[in-house]
Amino acid sequence: MPNNFADRLLKAIADKKTPAVIAVDPVYSRLPAEISEHRNMNDEADSEAALDAALEFCRRVIKVVAPLVPAIKLNSAYFERYYSEGIDGYYELVQEAAERNLVVIGDVKRGDIGPSSEMYARAHLAEPDFSDLEDIVAPDAVTVSGYFGIDAVKPFIDLCADPNDGKGVFVLVRTSNESAGSIQDVDLADGRKFYELMAAQVAQWAGESGTIGSRGYSSVGAVVSTRDAAAAAKMRSMMPQSILLVPGYGAQGMTAEDVAPFFKSDGSGALVVAGRSVIYAFEEAKYMEMYTSEWEKCIEHACRDFVGDLRRVVKIA
Amino acid sequence: MPNNFADRLLKAIADKKTPAVIAVDPVYSRLPAEISEHRNMNDEADSEAALDAALEFCRRVIKVVAPLVPAIKLNSAYFERYYSEGIDGYYELVQEAAERNLVVIGDVKRGDIGPSSEMYARAHLAEPDFSDLEDIVAPDAVTVSGYFGIDAVKPFIDLCADPNDGKGVFVLVRTSNESAGSIQDVDLADGRKFYELMAAQVAQWAGESGTIGSRGYSSVGAVVSTRDAAAAAKMRSMMPQSILLVPGYGAQGMTAEDVAPFFKSDGSGALVVAGRSVIYAFEEAKYMEMYTSEWEKCIEHACRDFVGDLRRVVKIA
Repeated sequence: MPNNFADRLLKAIADKKTPAVIAVDPVYSRLPAEISEHRNMNDEADSEAALDAALEFCRRVIKVVAPLVPAIKLNSAYFERYYSEGIDGYYELVQEAAERNLVVIGDVKRGDIGPSSEMYARAHLAEPDFSDLEDIVAPDAVTVSGYFGIDAVKPFIDLCADPNDGKGVFVLVRTSNESAGSIQDVDLADGRKFYELMAAQVAQWAGESGTIGSRGYSSVGAVVSTRDAAAAAKMRSMMPQSILLVPGYGAQGMTAEDVAPFFKSDGSGALVVAGRSVIYAFEEAKYMEMYTSEWEKCIEHACRDFVGDLRRVVKIA
Repeated sequence: MPNNFADRLLKAIADKKTPAVIAVDPVYSRLPAEISEHRNMNDEADSEAALDAALEFCRRVIKVVAPLVPAIKLNSAYFERYYSEGIDGYYELVQEAAERNLVVIGDVKRGDIGPSSEMYARAHLAEPDFSDLEDIVAPDAVTVSGYFGIDAVKPFIDLCADPNDGKGVFVLVRTSNESAGSIQDVDLADGRKFYELMAAQVAQWAGESGTIGSRGYSSVGAVVSTRDAAAAAKMRSMMPQSILLVPGYGAQGMTAEDVAPFFKSDGSGALVVAGRSVIYAFEEAKYMEMYTSEWEKCIEHACRDFVGDLRRVVKIA
């Protein structure tokens, strides 16, 4: 079998019997007391100490969720915050997660004019072509901006189509934030919403990408999120060959019922991301009462709750 | 005078009597032979050596253009290519340029949902709040994506409005790449083009930003590029309080005449970016014949040609 991202991802989903993805975004002020106290730090003024604590937290979260979910998502913003050392930490976590057989999605949202996007694709998705940096492990897939049109996405798609790389991309179509609608839901002259234009572009790019795997999905996916069931169903049908990465569950307010329309009737075709509601579960009375200060158990329980909640609405074949 | 980005930028433009900006994007394969040979490197397989060469080139370009232009632009893609060491190099160049009294625009094109965008704003625009990283100098302004709406831009605008930071942002409105039109020029139901919606949003954000300087410009600008003179004039009039950052001159095909409509009649309101046509001028027969292998003189001459060409169409008060 060629090295195809969609196939790898679908196998990981089948193995874990869930399309659940955990976003591991470290926020210093929310780290468990144990980690801060253990390191004798009371503030985050020292970047090295703060990053060490953040990375320890992430490693332990990854260890907890690795047996339960097929994939994690790392948002580079939370690591760029710590400048170059943070970038090293980001790649260490990618490697750590890969070694635990997790599919790793680098949520970098890059995009630029063609020559610059090629640099971004090499930096964030390709395995390093420098002899002194061969040890760096790149994510299996990254998120990219579609705002520039095909020029920006093409260098990433080329890495998806190359069986030596076998990578994946998720193009931003409809984001989960409150003000997304002010831009992405605008009505076009042809009767569509703007996000439908982006969805149509992604469908075309996926179809032409040369990355269709054994189950009919391409390695060119989309980031989509909305609580409007009809809009979700429309995006699902518009991008039949794309796996949809759906943020917004939990802390951002979406329920299992909200994400159900992003799946096909056979239970395939989408990944649902939960972040804060799982990795900071130890802040919630519900979990704290069960495990007091055993924060990893809180996270494990919340992750199982998330997986179980999704199972109510999506059956993985 | 409060620390206002628009005022600082306009003063820099007045001092140098030009709105010309040089994009310093190092591409290893195009570095002058002198730099490669001096370092005895024949390929870019070693990231450390390749980055050292790229940074030496950038430093020397910055030194050449610093007396001639008010600002430079550094695209982070060309530095992320070298992983964490590249990030260190990027910030070294920001500092180098700042010490030469250049306004520095970090072309990072970041944007995300609110909490993640706040991390990006702190990482890329704020001065570091870590005691061990106080030496890092952040750019004066960065480019940001408007695709998420105000949520993504707000953390950056907050840094612009804070007189302690006094930073600037340029929101992507109409980009210079070939496929930009497939997304950004689409017709909306209300008769506007999509980029006009983005322009209207930027105008609103600029007006509400609390960053209007002494000359009526805010610290919230826009990235705009088109060879359609009517479209350019429309964007100029739609964003009266925004300084427009205009890429596309030179290697990307735009002329001084093409960029003229982005300026107000008093010659204010825009920055024009040239990159490859200036920093790789030593590849062109025209300059090579004048200076043979003196590549810095080629760059200086091409920079003066760029500034002179703009002066034909724009008079700085």
